[in-house]
Amino acid sequence: MTKKISIVEKIHSANDQLAAENKQQLNQADLFSLNIMASPGAGKTSIIEKSLELLKSDYKIAAIDGDVATSIDANRAAEAGATAVQINTGGQCHTDAHMLRNALMELDLDKFDLLLVENVGNLICPASFKLGTDKNVLIASIPEGDDKPYKYPAMYQDVDALIINKIDLLPYVKFDMEYFQKGVQMLNPDLITFPVSCTTGKGIEAWVNWVSEHVKDKKVS
Amino acid sequence: MTKKISIVEKIHSANDQLAAENKQQLNQADLFSLNIMASPGAGKTSIIEKSLELLKSDYKIAAIDGDVATSIDANRAAEAGATAVQINTGGQCHTDAHMLRNALMELDLDKFDLLLVENVGNLICPASFKLGTDKNVLIASIPEGDDKPYKYPAMYQDVDALIINKIDLLPYVKFDMEYFQKGVQMLNPDLITFPVSCTTGKGIEAWVNWVSEHVKDKKVS
Repeated sequence: MTKKISIVEKIHSANDQLAAENKQQLNQADLFSLNIMASPGAGKTSIIEKSLELLKSDYKIAAIDGDVATSIDANRAAEAGATAVQINTGGQCHTDAHMLRNALMELDLDKFDLLLVENVGNLICPASFKLGTDKNVLIASIPEGDDKPYKYPAMYQDVDALIINKIDLLPYVKFDMEYFQKGVQMLNPDLITFPVSCTTGKGIEAWVNWVSEHVKDKKVS
Repeated sequence: MTKKISIVEKIHSANDQLAAENKQQLNQADLFSLNIMASPGAGKTSIIEKSLELLKSDYKIAAIDGDVATSIDANRAAEAGATAVQINTGGQCHTDAHMLRNALMELDLDKFDLLLVENVGNLICPASFKLGTDKNVLIASIPEGDDKPYKYPAMYQDVDALIINKIDLLPYVKFDMEYFQKGVQMLNPDLITFPVSCTTGKGIEAWVNWVSEHVKDKKVS
């Protein structure tokens, strides 16, 4: 038992070291970066597409997409206007700092203002692996159900912003927003939250403004 | 690198050994068992509730619910008529054979006809850990999107039945059923598939009949 714990700790401390190096590299380039996490199908790629649509005229944007297999997501990000790099994790259930470091090598970081990292679709494992990005963003989605903060607390606890996606589906599914928000509040009281719909576009502007403010802050800092 | 692979192999072979022991125990009790896997919020607990509603008058049913935290799912299964046991994985991203073995100890197996094991909400990690159940069932859900077989192939490859849940949401989301099915066919050509809606009840009967046939077959075998 002790041995197992010690192996886990070694993996995490090696990851934290690499995450710190990634952070330093991104800071040197004045590049604001987001680690976007969610369940499979919550809308990570759709949020990235919408963000690119509204931000690409103002900023140079890179997207790094982590997936178990395929390059579907990087292709979608590239079509939406990003310089895109696909990470295939080869079965691994999360993106880690080492994978991000390799992907960063593919990009001329000084040329970009904003980096969007799309993590592997998973509500558990990505919470344990920091990447070195400026902010961690979680996307919840209405059809997933209102009990997710209670059932996946680690993910909700550690993020800096929460997008609640697919609000256009609220009339068609059972989702008690008060119960959901109560769970979020309990775990992460000051979490900034953006209810949005990628289908109707509702709420996207507030999200994009938040991103834009941070990109500007990083440039002047 | 070699060392890492060897550790992974040891974990899996220890798990396979325990899964074989679970299988033997379940066979001795003539207890038909399902390992139900899906993304968070695809509808595992709802499918279990619907199955209990239609099967509980014919069979004695136990439910074992794996979750990172809370006993929300076991409570729902118990309210729907099952004898329910909650496994809290303590942060682990899947249910493994050792956890199932401990949960089986809480049940008098000879008293039951059907065991429903609800795995942790995750489309990656549960694929690597056999439990020793008779059949592995995957639940896909319409709002997750039609690209999931392509992006999470290991999960689709190894299952014995596929439920496509939330078909009542088809009019409200983009989902190309032909593209989805093409991906499934490629990975698992003979996979039996049940399109259902827990909200409207559509398709549930076909699923429940399939389960019922298997429960009876196990009793007479």
